[in-house]
Amino acid sequence: MRILGIDPGLGVTGYGLIDTGSATPRLIEAGVIRTNERNTMAERLGEIASAIDEIVGEFAPDVVAIEELYSHYEHPRTAIIMGHARGVVFLKAAERGLPVFPYAATRVKKSLLGNGRATKSQVQLMIRTSLGLSQTPEPPDAADALAVALCHVRAHISAGSPLSAGAR
Amino acid sequence: MRILGIDPGLGVTGYGLIDTGSATPRLIEAGVIRTNERNTMAERLGEIASAIDEIVGEFAPDVVAIEELYSHYEHPRTAIIMGHARGVVFLKAAERGLPVFPYAATRVKKSLLGNGRATKSQVQLMIRTSLGLSQTPEPPDAADALAVALCHVRAHISAGSPLSAGAR
Repeated sequence: MRILGIDPGLGVTGYGLIDTGSATPRLIEAGVIRTNERNTMAERLGEIASAIDEIVGEFAPDVVAIEELYSHYEHPRTAIIMGHARGVVFLKAAERGLPVFPYAATRVKKSLLGNGRATKSQVQLMIRTSLGLSQTPEPPDAADALAVALCHVRAHISAGSPLSAGAR
Repeated sequence: MRILGIDPGLGVTGYGLIDTGSATPRLIEAGVIRTNERNTMAERLGEIASAIDEIVGEFAPDVVAIEELYSHYEHPRTAIIMGHARGVVFLKAAERGLPVFPYAATRVKKSLLGNGRATKSQVQLMIRTSLGLSQTPEPPDAADALAVALCHVRAHISAGSPLSAGAR
């Protein structure tokens, strides 16, 4: 099973692909989609859509995992703009028939670090350890995308010895 | 020139098409896109995307006019969800190469009614008068979409005798 984690944003959208076909989850690819801030909103959303199409086309994920919305945002306008990018991700998933699983940020952090308020650098370090990477995933948006993908792995490949079960 | 006005929302998206090819702007079509609330976010955004595709395909607008974001929202979470639908509208416009013009809600109302705080029913009545309709456009989402399209007409077909100039 391949999981595409997404951390959406108009300027920077993190993405990370994890494969659960072996005993431990394996990193396939991670990075960020950066849009040109001189472009219009429509053009930038088009850039995100094209990049998601390319990623899904190349890596053929089975599901998409994405951060759930909160109830309270410090910067609502920024959050609404993020909502535009998030909507494009959902639409692209719908077009490909990929199910989307939203996870609250606090749940992601708690699931991976036992602490819903972990910092970005703690998340990066945890991702590095969990996936056995030689380097810390940069930028943090890519690590956040991998974190939500990994949260989906832990949530869905059940309790017990979940990942080896997934490998059979 | 044909203008497609959009009032985006995940549950109900209003749309309204206006033609400026005659002395006074003329209504071509208006209505709402309602999504199935039992469906997932991704499916609902897919429904909006398909409907926008159909509308654009059938009525071939030249531009899209849409409400600008505010700075402050009473219900940020609802606004973020609206942002998802708005993002899909922008993306569909980008795919068709249609320019998108955002107008602040207060500007729309002020431009049409001289009062940035006009009520929904005042907007509906003004739309009815401006477009010479025998009935009030229902629901209000359709009237709001027509209002933003009409605001674009007034903003862009300049001062003086703008609409007759547009008819030559």
